[in-house]
Amino acid sequence: MYRAVVTIRLKKGVLNPEGRTILRALNFLGYREVKDVDTFKCIELLIEGGDRERVRERVEEMCKKLLANPVIHDYEIKIEKMEKD
Amino acid sequence: MYRAVVTIRLKKGVLNPEGRTILRALNFLGYREVKDVDTFKCIELLIEGGDRERVRERVEEMCKKLLANPVIHDYEIKIEKMEKD
Repeated sequence: MYRAVVTIRLKKGVLNPEGRTILRALNFLGYREVKDVDTFKCIELLIEGGDRERVRERVEEMCKKLLANPVIHDYEIKIEKMEKD
Repeated sequence: MYRAVVTIRLKKGVLNPEGRTILRALNFLGYREVKDVDTFKCIELLIEGGDRERVRERVEEMCKKLLANPVIHDYEIKIEKMEKD
């Protein structure tokens, strides 16, 4: 069993309105030391399989087909083997 | 300057409809090896300040006031000093 964590964030240059909103809200609440805010999403997958490279290929495919939008997103995949396989 | 990453996820036992939807979609697309999906959100803050403990306290406050909903969310704070301060 593997645990894959896919981190999906907006590409550089793509506006992140959520981050901007949080930044303004924090500044407004008095947290003026906050200078920038970025947000990103993580998807954690529990995957059955024996071969780490094969798992990575499949997750890469999932990202392209469903999880990320390649026009606006960068993604990063981390895979770890779970104990008690 | 510090970089704080706040990871916000649903508490155990709180249903994650987004994760369920992704799981079903992946299985439907033929990725039957995926057994479970969880999603969570990260907020990255760039914070001006000299003292790490003070920064942590402030971020903890921000979580309680704005970033997380303590009824349904667990959160975790990671703080690292940025180079070229």
